[in-house]
Amino acid sequence: MAVYTQLSDEELARFVAGHGLGDLRSVKGIAEGVENTNYLIETERGRYILTIYEKRVAPENLPFYLGLMEHLSSKGIACPLPVRDTNGQQVAQLAGRAAAIVTFLDGVSLRQPSQRHCDLVGEGLARLHLAGLDYPRRLPNALGPDGWQPLYRGFQARADEVRPGLGAFIEAELAALLPAWPSRLPEGVIHADLFPDNAFFLGDRLSGIIDFYFACNDMLAYDIAICLNAWCFDAKRAYDRDKGAALLAGYQRVRRLDAAERAALPALARGAALRFLLTRAHDWLNTPKDAIVEPHDPYDYVARIEQHREMVDALDYGLEG
Amino acid sequence: MAVYTQLSDEELARFVAGHGLGDLRSVKGIAEGVENTNYLIETERGRYILTIYEKRVAPENLPFYLGLMEHLSSKGIACPLPVRDTNGQQVAQLAGRAAAIVTFLDGVSLRQPSQRHCDLVGEGLARLHLAGLDYPRRLPNALGPDGWQPLYRGFQARADEVRPGLGAFIEAELAALLPAWPSRLPEGVIHADLFPDNAFFLGDRLSGIIDFYFACNDMLAYDIAICLNAWCFDAKRAYDRDKGAALLAGYQRVRRLDAAERAALPALARGAALRFLLTRAHDWLNTPKDAIVEPHDPYDYVARIEQHREMVDALDYGLEG
Repeated sequence: MAVYTQLSDEELARFVAGHGLGDLRSVKGIAEGVENTNYLIETERGRYILTIYEKRVAPENLPFYLGLMEHLSSKGIACPLPVRDTNGQQVAQLAGRAAAIVTFLDGVSLRQPSQRHCDLVGEGLARLHLAGLDYPRRLPNALGPDGWQPLYRGFQARADEVRPGLGAFIEAELAALLPAWPSRLPEGVIHADLFPDNAFFLGDRLSGIIDFYFACNDMLAYDIAICLNAWCFDAKRAYDRDKGAALLAGYQRVRRLDAAERAALPALARGAALRFLLTRAHDWLNTPKDAIVEPHDPYDYVARIEQHREMVDALDYGLEG
Repeated sequence: MAVYTQLSDEELARFVAGHGLGDLRSVKGIAEGVENTNYLIETERGRYILTIYEKRVAPENLPFYLGLMEHLSSKGIACPLPVRDTNGQQVAQLAGRAAAIVTFLDGVSLRQPSQRHCDLVGEGLARLHLAGLDYPRRLPNALGPDGWQPLYRGFQARADEVRPGLGAFIEAELAALLPAWPSRLPEGVIHADLFPDNAFFLGDRLSGIIDFYFACNDMLAYDIAICLNAWCFDAKRAYDRDKGAALLAGYQRVRRLDAAERAALPALARGAALRFLLTRAHDWLNTPKDAIVEPHDPYDYVARIEQHREMVDALDYGLEG
């Protein structure tokens, strides 16, 4: 939501020229994601996003993320394509930080996606999963179950500042989920953060998926579980079964879920909700009270978890066929 | 520097359609100015800036600002042109606030403008002044000398929190400037905030002037004085006489300064510096300590005032001919 790193005119012009993109025609700092500094630039060659990676993205993981975008693009997935510089590198230094230029994607992200959009994103997610199967690099999921305990410990003492009882709620969830976490499900590269603000639509098609900076190797069905949490709850925090059914139907047009994945979906959805509850609670406790950007309410995910607890299998989410 | 007002998909689509611009192709919240919420939008018809006016812009002054941009555009000044909606209005309500759509301008604003850019902006300012002479609406300068005392009173008790002695410094300036403030100089519409971030360049030409939300009626030479403060001091806060000479030469190619304006320039420059010192000190004292956006250092303008005090007339700023 903010532009953090400020650039000198020469630094910027040199960086753009070093990517063979010619003269700059315009530069706008944009509010795309909260993690990095992003500029929308236009040059003689077209429009691009210039990203300067701030503290949340580990520079050693950039080859995984940017290589993935290049791999997926080459397979026809509509995602940003990193522009290699004249030395053939996807990442270079700018203003003392790692930075990259990727292609700009047309499209609009939706705050209130419809059932139809849920169908399209489900289909797009499955295509992304198939296209990623032969991606050679590997990166474990730092925000998977092994990461939940350490993340919780970081704010455990203050958890009840968010709301009384949150600490006990999280501890009960950890105790329920960690011993029985699903395994041996089909794995691959997952996006792991495919929220509506990371999907662009143009008319009646999914025109782009962006922000691959949480991508990692994990169970593919866990990515579906994340999307169910991100796309299929209404403003009153109630599960929208029609949207869930649409998302799952869209997904299954491209890749069918097997029996183990169907059975595991409630646990995965509950774990995914816990993962976002943990990071939101952390951010809530670490955001200055007078910050311009209001942190998301962690209780959106408490409400989701309570509903996931009632689900028995994928049918309860609306899966058909 | 921030996107404040969040929009629903329908609100945004309806607003854009209501301006006859067709379907949205992309929307990016951009960091343009600190006062308003700005979105860079692209539709079937082209690129535009959608501005939602936040608290610093008085809605009753919008007809002056937007009408001015339309007037200047019609005279060939490269500034944003407000797009009237299908009811013929330049301003409409969006998300409960006044909002407008203006055309997008290519070009890059420069953090380190050169002597050549100072020449171009001087010329552009003079063209703007001539083009504004027959603009029929009027708006007094709320941040002119009549506004300095009230502005100072708002933080007087805390002035020395910025740095010890600032209160006494400001009071001495007010006492020196207010009784002898220049008058009877040529007047017209002034931009009043033409800093480098409000000027776009494309190659070797001034491709746009933006952000007319401080524009008002005042002495034209006061606008030059603002630009000398904004464009012609180096990073060590020293006056750059070469840049000042270039700015004044550029201006005089289009409109020559008369004898009274030349004599008044040091007082006007000192008053302009005081105006920015006052607003910066106010912002400094009212910005949360942990805000992402660091406030500008008010002492940049103390240093300028000390130099303006030594100037006798426009020749000291580098004016030739």
